[in-house]
Amino acid sequence: MLTVQDALIRLQKFWTDRGCMVVQPFNTEVGAGTMNPATVMRVLGPEPWRVAYAEPSVRPDDSRYGENPNRLQTHTQFQVILKPEPGNPQELYLESLREAFEIDLEAHDVRFVEDNWAQPAIGAWGLGWEVWLDGMEVTQFTYMQQVSGLNLEPVSVELTYGIERIMMAQQGVTHFKDMQYAPGITYGEVFGQVEYEMSRYYLDDADVGANQDLFEHYTTEAQRLIDARLPVPAWTYVLKSSHAFNVLDSRGAISTTERAKSFSLMRRLARDVGRLWVERRAELDFPLMKSEPAKIQVGSAVLPPRPDEADDDHAALPTDAQDLALEVGVEELPPHVVVQAIEQVRTALVDGLAGARLTHGDIEVVGTPRRIVATVRDLSAHEPDAQTLRKGPKVEAAFDADGNPTKACQGFARGQKVDPADLVRAQFDGAEHVAVRVTQEGRGVLEVASELISGVVTGLRADKNMRWSDPKLTYSRPIRWLVALWGEIVVPVEVSSLRAGRTTYVHRTAAAPLVGVAAARDMRNTLETHGLVLDPAVRREQVVEQATALAATVDGSVDVEGESALVDEITNLVEQPHGILGSFGPKYLELPEQILTTVMRKHQRYLPVRDASGALMPYFVTMANGDCDDDLVRAGNESVLRARYEDAAFFYDADLKVPLADLRAGISRLTFEDRLGSMADRADRIRDVATTLAGDLGLDGDEKATLARAGELAKFDLSSQMVVELSSLAGTMAREYAARAGEPKPVAQALWEMELPRQAGDAVPESRPGALLALADRFDLLMAMFALGAKPTGSSDPFALRRAALGVVSILRAQPTLASLTVDRGLEAAADRLRQQGVEVKDDAVESATEFVTGRFGQALRDEGVAVGLVSAVQSLATAPGQAEQALADIDTVRRRDDFAPTVEAVQRITRIVPAGTPGSYDAGRLTEPAEVALHEKVAVLPDHAADGIPAWVGDASQLVAPLTVFFDDVLVMAEDTDVRAARLGLLQTIVDRAPAGIDWKALDSALAV
Amino acid sequence: MLTVQDALIRLQKFWTDRGCMVVQPFNTEVGAGTMNPATVMRVLGPEPWRVAYAEPSVRPDDSRYGENPNRLQTHTQFQVILKPEPGNPQELYLESLREAFEIDLEAHDVRFVEDNWAQPAIGAWGLGWEVWLDGMEVTQFTYMQQVSGLNLEPVSVELTYGIERIMMAQQGVTHFKDMQYAPGITYGEVFGQVEYEMSRYYLDDADVGANQDLFEHYTTEAQRLIDARLPVPAWTYVLKSSHAFNVLDSRGAISTTERAKSFSLMRRLARDVGRLWVERRAELDFPLMKSEPAKIQVGSAVLPPRPDEADDDHAALPTDAQDLALEVGVEELPPHVVVQAIEQVRTALVDGLAGARLTHGDIEVVGTPRRIVATVRDLSAHEPDAQTLRKGPKVEAAFDADGNPTKACQGFARGQKVDPADLVRAQFDGAEHVAVRVTQEGRGVLEVASELISGVVTGLRADKNMRWSDPKLTYSRPIRWLVALWGEIVVPVEVSSLRAGRTTYVHRTAAAPLVGVAAARDMRNTLETHGLVLDPAVRREQVVEQATALAATVDGSVDVEGESALVDEITNLVEQPHGILGSFGPKYLELPEQILTTVMRKHQRYLPVRDASGALMPYFVTMANGDCDDDLVRAGNESVLRARYEDAAFFYDADLKVPLADLRAGISRLTFEDRLGSMADRADRIRDVATTLAGDLGLDGDEKATLARAGELAKFDLSSQMVVELSSLAGTMAREYAARAGEPKPVAQALWEMELPRQAGDAVPESRPGALLALADRFDLLMAMFALGAKPTGSSDPFALRRAALGVVSILRAQPTLASLTVDRGLEAAADRLRQQGVEVKDDAVESATEFVTGRFGQALRDEGVAVGLVSAVQSLATAPGQAEQALADIDTVRRRDDFAPTVEAVQRITRIVPAGTPGSYDAGRLTEPAEVALHEKVAVLPDHAADGIPAWVGDASQLVAPLTVFFDDVLVMAEDTDVRAARLGLLQTIVDRAPAGIDWKALDSALAV
Repeated sequence: MLTVQDALIRLQKFWTDRGCMVVQPFNTEVGAGTMNPATVMRVLGPEPWRVAYAEPSVRPDDSRYGENPNRLQTHTQFQVILKPEPGNPQELYLESLREAFEIDLEAHDVRFVEDNWAQPAIGAWGLGWEVWLDGMEVTQFTYMQQVSGLNLEPVSVELTYGIERIMMAQQGVTHFKDMQYAPGITYGEVFGQVEYEMSRYYLDDADVGANQDLFEHYTTEAQRLIDARLPVPAWTYVLKSSHAFNVLDSRGAISTTERAKSFSLMRRLARDVGRLWVERRAELDFPLMKSEPAKIQVGSAVLPPRPDEADDDHAALPTDAQDLALEVGVEELPPHVVVQAIEQVRTALVDGLAGARLTHGDIEVVGTPRRIVATVRDLSAHEPDAQTLRKGPKVEAAFDADGNPTKACQGFARGQKVDPADLVRAQFDGAEHVAVRVTQEGRGVLEVASELISGVVTGLRADKNMRWSDPKLTYSRPIRWLVALWGEIVVPVEVSSLRAGRTTYVHRTAAAPLVGVAAARDMRNTLETHGLVLDPAVRREQVVEQATALAATVDGSVDVEGESALVDEITNLVEQPHGILGSFGPKYLELPEQILTTVMRKHQRYLPVRDASGALMPYFVTMANGDCDDDLVRAGNESVLRARYEDAAFFYDADLKVPLADLRAGISRLTFEDRLGSMADRADRIRDVATTLAGDLGLDGDEKATLARAGELAKFDLSSQMVVELSSLAGTMAREYAARAGEPKPVAQALWEMELPRQAGDAVPESRPGALLALADRFDLLMAMFALGAKPTGSSDPFALRRAALGVVSILRAQPTLASLTVDRGLEAAADRLRQQGVEVKDDAVESATEFVTGRFGQALRDEGVAVGLVSAVQSLATAPGQAEQALADIDTVRRRDDFAPTVEAVQRITRIVPAGTPGSYDAGRLTEPAEVALHEKVAVLPDHAADGIPAWVGDASQLVAPLTVFFDDVLVMAEDTDVRAARLGLLQTIVDRAPAGIDWKALDSALAV
Repeated sequence: MLTVQDALIRLQKFWTDRGCMVVQPFNTEVGAGTMNPATVMRVLGPEPWRVAYAEPSVRPDDSRYGENPNRLQTHTQFQVILKPEPGNPQELYLESLREAFEIDLEAHDVRFVEDNWAQPAIGAWGLGWEVWLDGMEVTQFTYMQQVSGLNLEPVSVELTYGIERIMMAQQGVTHFKDMQYAPGITYGEVFGQVEYEMSRYYLDDADVGANQDLFEHYTTEAQRLIDARLPVPAWTYVLKSSHAFNVLDSRGAISTTERAKSFSLMRRLARDVGRLWVERRAELDFPLMKSEPAKIQVGSAVLPPRPDEADDDHAALPTDAQDLALEVGVEELPPHVVVQAIEQVRTALVDGLAGARLTHGDIEVVGTPRRIVATVRDLSAHEPDAQTLRKGPKVEAAFDADGNPTKACQGFARGQKVDPADLVRAQFDGAEHVAVRVTQEGRGVLEVASELISGVVTGLRADKNMRWSDPKLTYSRPIRWLVALWGEIVVPVEVSSLRAGRTTYVHRTAAAPLVGVAAARDMRNTLETHGLVLDPAVRREQVVEQATALAATVDGSVDVEGESALVDEITNLVEQPHGILGSFGPKYLELPEQILTTVMRKHQRYLPVRDASGALMPYFVTMANGDCDDDLVRAGNESVLRARYEDAAFFYDADLKVPLADLRAGISRLTFEDRLGSMADRADRIRDVATTLAGDLGLDGDEKATLARAGELAKFDLSSQMVVELSSLAGTMAREYAARAGEPKPVAQALWEMELPRQAGDAVPESRPGALLALADRFDLLMAMFALGAKPTGSSDPFALRRAALGVVSILRAQPTLASLTVDRGLEAAADRLRQQGVEVKDDAVESATEFVTGRFGQALRDEGVAVGLVSAVQSLATAPGQAEQALADIDTVRRRDDFAPTVEAVQRITRIVPAGTPGSYDAGRLTEPAEVALHEKVAVLPDHAADGIPAWVGDASQLVAPLTVFFDDVLVMAEDTDVRAARLGLLQTIVDRAPAGIDWKALDSALAV
């Protein structure tokens, strides 16, 4: 049996054998091996560095009293830094799995799954993968790009092995305590008590005040040491402050503002330390620059280097057309990048060939995460020569009065090395010039293709790009090899450090991973013979077929339509889909479905299996990458899923044991914001604001009771372990736990609904109690933050106020029964409630908050494609988005009616003439002209539609169109007699007043342009 | 080249191959590997535990900015715990040196030099050694006996390798930065910057206030966690508090009282955590008790186990006398224990054989650190039978009136299985009893010897004893083997787990370390043939001869007389003295001699070499243990000495660069005691008190100037690096630095003298300025502490007030020119000065302090053997020890004069008669009797000797003896006439008054008993 200790010693040996230095773990608590200065400092600057070390990593948040099978407050990372990245880190890594952990790479399913690392706390990011061993994340593999906000030059590769995870899988145990740590002693025997007691400290016993003081002292000391230009001790204090912060966090003592403030402070300190480190190293003249590190050779045949093959004899090139084949070999691209890459290569080839004079047939581009393969049929061997005219001076300037060539003309001819007599005349941009006829010689295919392929490769870009050891290239992941063949000839392409050849790599685990390609036409066939399914469409089909067939074996099915995005993703996670059906304990089906599917989809990329009724079955389908030992891989994946579900079940069971009242009481320990009290205070405010607004609306008795109870419980699930763990389940768990605790269904529903919508496009509450709580939640948040002056600026919106504002708008728009609720009313209610609590809320804060929300509403409408004019037209209804929504709907209903446009135009005409503030009343006795009398008679019978919708109004109002036309033709509104003038204006204003309120008629043009 | 990293990996492998577990270093700063819970907790309680780990150990005090070749603020320990100790840990350890470090044990000089470990801060102690490799301490080797104040059961053995030291020696480099840490990278390249920057933090930049707060928080948190019964997190906070304390200490911010207070707090916390840990393990049912650890086999031939040899065939034992030989094999005893052990064995054998009836010849006992060897010549084979009488009832009770045996008598006879008729009569304690004649059968020699030897072994005791894996034995170091032979026969001795045999171990590095002994008479010869010099006297002679001869090769000599104690120690540090002459850089001779010799003698046990003038030469002699590669061992020892001198030179040079005024200013950063201000405040007080006392004495102008300047500089060297490092050099360095800075010689001298005497028997100041400063120093200390109520109690005297009091007394006794200075005057002056500074000093504090000092004076006199009567006689002079001393000297001068005793007796007679308070005047007219008139006439001419010494007085006073005798014979002093009585008493009192003052004549008897 390979013990944990053996594995650590072997890893140490593996990496020291490859030129790494071993250092000791850091002697203050770190959250990850990255934070050891042997990584976080040493990756900065130009000095080479290779290091490997174990690092017990402390995550107070992961404390589970040692009870959870997979979570430990201290887990052991094994960290490797290779700087610069050696060009073959994936292969070295795979070899380490085999040598240090005795993992049979042929039998297991090892995958590199996109995982982009970012640690804003230290101004750091990188691109890479989580490495999956049978579905379990065993290593974080990152090409570090920035640390301390500084670009890393050279780029380091960071490998972080999760020792406990790998070893649990390796030993086949399901609880960390059962691992053999050393001969005769288990992990639990060595570390069990520590897990229990440190968990007690982090979760229950740490003194909050003391740790707050420690945080203060640590950060202050860090700053002092930065000022003293001592990055090394400064960094220890940054680490200590980070740990103190984590302790406070696990004790639930970090409010949102504190978090933001502390993070900003730690980020600044970390950045300053990093910069200072580089400065100091520069002052020391970068002592480790003395020598280049040796290339690390891969000791086994995992991935041998390719031979140099671009030296074909080009003496006797074929003269007839040949296929062109190109393979761009990459390290595993993220799934969405595979799709983009195929398109980019296709476009580049099509455009490139369009600019060349070679004839060719079809262009086909396919790809997998590890390669993009393009073929161009029948690419001709040589461009024909082409004739062009090169422009000289204008004819007027080329010849003097006598028709002799001017000096300018002679100079041009001389420059073109022709006799002036040979010049011709031609039109350029409508003017006649002299010109010289030039023959552009056709290039050979190799020259053209070489240039084309260079462009293809250097042009590859993704949304996130990285650098690696290549001096020039930049892309989503490293490009490691090129195959380029025209017929049987290697196209002589050199792109930065890459050189095209005829040898490709098939599956890493193939007996002979290096495979030669005889000729371009064999390219796809050669690869496909080795099991690689190059065409994404074919792969997708295989994924679907295999998943469907596997599900069918247990009388289940996979919702291929519903899981379409997941299927797409899976398709581009593998080169050769190999479906495996796994199962999990049926007992987990008792967990809420959302938990189960979230874990399967998001974390594991498993396809859930459902029965005929659509209910989840205890099965899943995973797609391995190519052949493997199915039983082994199945078992591994099942154990990962079990671990995750066990985790969830642990929280779920624990939560169910706590009465709702206690959970609700628990949120008083969650500080929301210093000046705003705890989360419990906030929940109380939400309840009260919702109740106030309910009073405005007049809810029925049942609704009132529901609101009252839901208000009492509001947000209770935030203190549940499940939500603490997976915050996206807030609301979901409230509904679940409330229902389980016997609360009435509407109460449970309202508790769920009050969290809606969680993001743009999400569902909105259906019940009025739910909607009122959801609104109150957002009104409180918005009002509180505006009161504190914490409104969003630029890209900074730490409290997600934009989302809150959009939430308010969405709810009010969606719920006609809430149409009478206005934004300002809601914010006023929230402001009053805050004032009761002693928070100062100035009137202009309410105003700004209102403006903010209505502004977001307008923006949302524009984003949805509503015409600017329409948005303006309902702008005055923006504080009542429900009404605005109705108005827009109304407009949409009537906009195609014949009478609509004339009616609106008539109103617009009135509003252009009648000054603002004109009263909508008039002395009919002053109206004497027939046209005005006729209009008056129509107006007199016009019902007041101020409170109605446009459709109800337009029929009546359209009756005025004709008389109005006459009126305007015959009557001078602005009569000299002021009384007459007043009566005429009053008449017109009455028409406007009886139109639906809140519409800016002047702005309504776009609705007329049907 | 073996790199540091290789060595760590190999050590790891060496110990895991022997059943140790590897754990990671602790993730908070620790001062030593011991403090990792993997040691300090796991050695507690009954559970077995074997562990090995590297531990970067942080010692802020050792910060040297990376400049010192041997000191690092963080050095790497490699820690091994074997619990229970496996019986052969020394052999395992030696094997590890060979296997992990490639150290050729035959070529090098490896020694186990007594070093008793104690860490009061965690209530821990143990016995063991520092292991020397060519004079360099490379490993701490301890049998841990107590931790947290708890006895360790079983005993753990702790090995702490000093990786940097071993590897510097192994690689032959002289600066830590030059070690190869890993291939292509030096230790300095990896850790140099860290050393510099962390040194800056610890020595210069750490914020004192912040670290004080941290200390507070950490200890408070530790206490809370103890209360919560969580020893694991509690311990992390004990460690953190310890580190904070160390940081404060290295910043010079810990006062004596703070140190005492903090230590007491940390000690209590550590003890409580340890006890709590054991309780918690007990509650968990000691989970690791499941199995006994396997015996660790020594893989090589370093020290093979002995065969079992006590099974000789005893059928045909010789009948004639044979020699008896005994060897008690031990692990290296401390030198002084070797001497004790030889005596103990000798006494036990002599006494034991005296109680047996075997005849024997000479008993000889010799020994080395590793064995005690005893031989008894011609021990007879068998005890002769012996006749004894066994006592029965008294004769009166044995026979009735008829002379027949009583029942009592019959019963006795029956019990003794004899016929009553066979009983005899005999005297027992003066009474006649019946008795039975009994023959006590002689025992065979093996039985007698076996019992005797058992007693010898179990009876071995030293001043400090320990337990090891043996279930019963206890001694200075483990007893590992016994050889016991009578003639050629193994004496069948079993003592606890030991069993005697005929095989012994010679030098561990011998080709065949196991050697059989054929017969008792061969024992010493066999051992000596293998180079072991058993007789300490012979070894001492060899040490002296070799050292002398080696010194002579460089025309030097060794002061054998002067270094006598060191020679004794060296003699018992080796089994076979092998002298090696080493040298050091002559430049170091510029350092003060006391530094050089202190290092050679105390740290290295080297004999200094001097030239004909007695001046130090740049050579030393070390004694290796037996044959080795002289050049290698010399080089090693030289490099150790160089390192130590380099250290000293570093401080020395650094100190010389600092102006005295700055050094003096520096002591204001040393807190002396919270309420008493800084060390600078204290120095100011000393200066002022000395000046005040100087005023009393009336110094001359030069003395005044010297005192003034020395007072200004008083204690300045306490802030020098040299004294911070080696506090025993306080005063020495003051003199040195002052002289170098151009101060007048008397000033330098006074600064040195003010620290005298440093302990009982030390020199005292010779100059008056020096003496006054020394006195003022002690008066201030005593008065200050008594003012604060901090007087010594029982064995607790943290401020060494007893030593201070004795210092005062010694100075005053030694300096006649200071005789007028009294203790109370000095303390009053100190009290006044303290009051000026705002310290409350009550009058009774001055009184108690005075009593304390005079009490110590009396005690000192008694300890010196001064007769109690004499001590009492001068008691009233105790506040003026100078005068008391003079009085005692005077008494000594005159005590043998014929007229002294009669004169004193006469005075005594007077003092017996004359009531206290009688005035020394009288009306001579009242005196009428001839005897009183005659006496009056003598008294009238008696000079007043009150202020004189006894010798001056006794001649005059002796003239009174005869008239006084007549007076007492003839005159009734207590006349009825009061006037007459008054005159007679006045006459007598006058005689007393004119005698030297301060003598208690009544107490002076012992002086008379010449």
